[in-house]
Amino acid sequence: MDIAYLGPVASFTHSAAQYAFPDENLVPLGAIPDAIMAIQKGEVDAAVVPIENTIEGGVNITLDYLFHFADVPIQAEIVLPIAQHVMVHPKNEAVWKSAQKVLSHPQGLAQCAKFLQDHLYGVEQIATPSTAYAAKWIKEHPDELAAAISPEMAATEYGLHVVQNNAQDIELNQTRFAVLSRKELKLSLPADEEKTSISVILPNNLPGALHKVLSAFAWRDIDLSKIESRPLKTSLGEYFFLIDLYSSKKTELVQNALSEIALLGGETKVLGTYHVFRILTSNGEE
Amino acid sequence: MDIAYLGPVASFTHSAAQYAFPDENLVPLGAIPDAIMAIQKGEVDAAVVPIENTIEGGVNITLDYLFHFADVPIQAEIVLPIAQHVMVHPKNEAVWKSAQKVLSHPQGLAQCAKFLQDHLYGVEQIATPSTAYAAKWIKEHPDELAAAISPEMAATEYGLHVVQNNAQDIELNQTRFAVLSRKELKLSLPADEEKTSISVILPNNLPGALHKVLSAFAWRDIDLSKIESRPLKTSLGEYFFLIDLYSSKKTELVQNALSEIALLGGETKVLGTYHVFRILTSNGEE
Repeated sequence: MDIAYLGPVASFTHSAAQYAFPDENLVPLGAIPDAIMAIQKGEVDAAVVPIENTIEGGVNITLDYLFHFADVPIQAEIVLPIAQHVMVHPKNEAVWKSAQKVLSHPQGLAQCAKFLQDHLYGVEQIATPSTAYAAKWIKEHPDELAAAISPEMAATEYGLHVVQNNAQDIELNQTRFAVLSRKELKLSLPADEEKTSISVILPNNLPGALHKVLSAFAWRDIDLSKIESRPLKTSLGEYFFLIDLYSSKKTELVQNALSEIALLGGETKVLGTYHVFRILTSNGEE
Repeated sequence: MDIAYLGPVASFTHSAAQYAFPDENLVPLGAIPDAIMAIQKGEVDAAVVPIENTIEGGVNITLDYLFHFADVPIQAEIVLPIAQHVMVHPKNEAVWKSAQKVLSHPQGLAQCAKFLQDHLYGVEQIATPSTAYAAKWIKEHPDELAAAISPEMAATEYGLHVVQNNAQDIELNQTRFAVLSRKELKLSLPADEEKTSISVILPNNLPGALHKVLSAFAWRDIDLSKIESRPLKTSLGEYFFLIDLYSSKKTELVQNALSEIALLGGETKVLGTYHVFRILTSNGEE
């Protein structure tokens, strides 16, 4: 099978994809929309994209693409520990504290906000499409006095020197990755809880609409693990909601709740029913 | 009075601050945390920061700082129309389509994602602390073949040429700005609805906790205008919620709801009770 992931080689998503698909052909793509559209158009058999991080929260572009452009279900969620390291070209190892720019994915920059404030204050921050892209850029620009925030695996892949381990602001930093596929997948990892992800547009002009939608789940004892609002991008104050439900042994109850929300005028879409797979040590840490 | 705002001069926040405080001393600061900490430490009399945009949603760093670090109340909300323009140094006007980098605040880049995909595909995107900072950078680096996404006012301020008007993905693009102050403020603008913003940490291990919290408002006919979840930054799956309520003539009911949420074990914090002030035409459009 061909598995698209947010590349380049040695990204955190690459690690997640390796755990999920150790024996398949992994295809790095340059941006999250590219990976989602590759599976949407059927060019690959599955796609792996980051969906939420402990520190920085939901990955907006993933959430927005899943809602607006994709109808391929989430078949699995991979949870990976994330360690961010500061790395430079070997020739700049001694002078890294004078770096004139620091590159990473906006999530990597945000996860290390306190470190950057303390150690690289005022240094120009350049947002890259992924953390590993930043490492690759450093390799390709040896004459730039620049640092990347990137996984350990990327330092190895691109021959960089790590000058600061674990620069993320908190120790227990994790990222959730969604595996999208039209096929049901059997991963050879121990499975944790089952969840169902849905999106909901609330009925217009129904006071307390969100409360009513949550009531449909609450009185059926369907617990939420997450709720997030995102703008509909129409006008300020118009949102859709992404809700993760613990759905194990509640398939019919979830279906009934969704039917009733539709009767009230809400629009729902099931993004997938899937198991969570937790990785205890990331590649980046080995 | 001294009013801190997310600068530099000619930023969208500068426009919002000018509307709110036409006769006061406006002090540009380089980053959102700087503006929030300036009012928190009492170095200024008020601070103006962006809090939400139509397209890209909540401004995470503002929301996180208001929750984690600030206890200065929101005294007003300014809603401003946002027009993003692509601008370059005058010497690069003819060759802007060959730009090698495009600079803007991450929100500016996100608001113009479709334009960038269509017209500057694959061009390096550099995140700046504000949209106006990007324009200032272009002015200071005439030899770089680079473009900024920034307000009209910044093109005027920094002598740049606009090569594309209204590059944002939708027409009705607006941003909400929060005005923080320990003093009650009287703005000479027509006031719209009153809102109260609160944060809530749900009680641990209480199934359906969010539903119960929303019930406390729903049965009192207190409507929500917004709910947003943000990670607590402790471990994956731990959140706090930011909720905006329509609180006009419901002061006591809101207070009762908050008391009862506390009795259930929830932690609430009132971020402010304030009026919304809508600006119909931004400075950037004049």
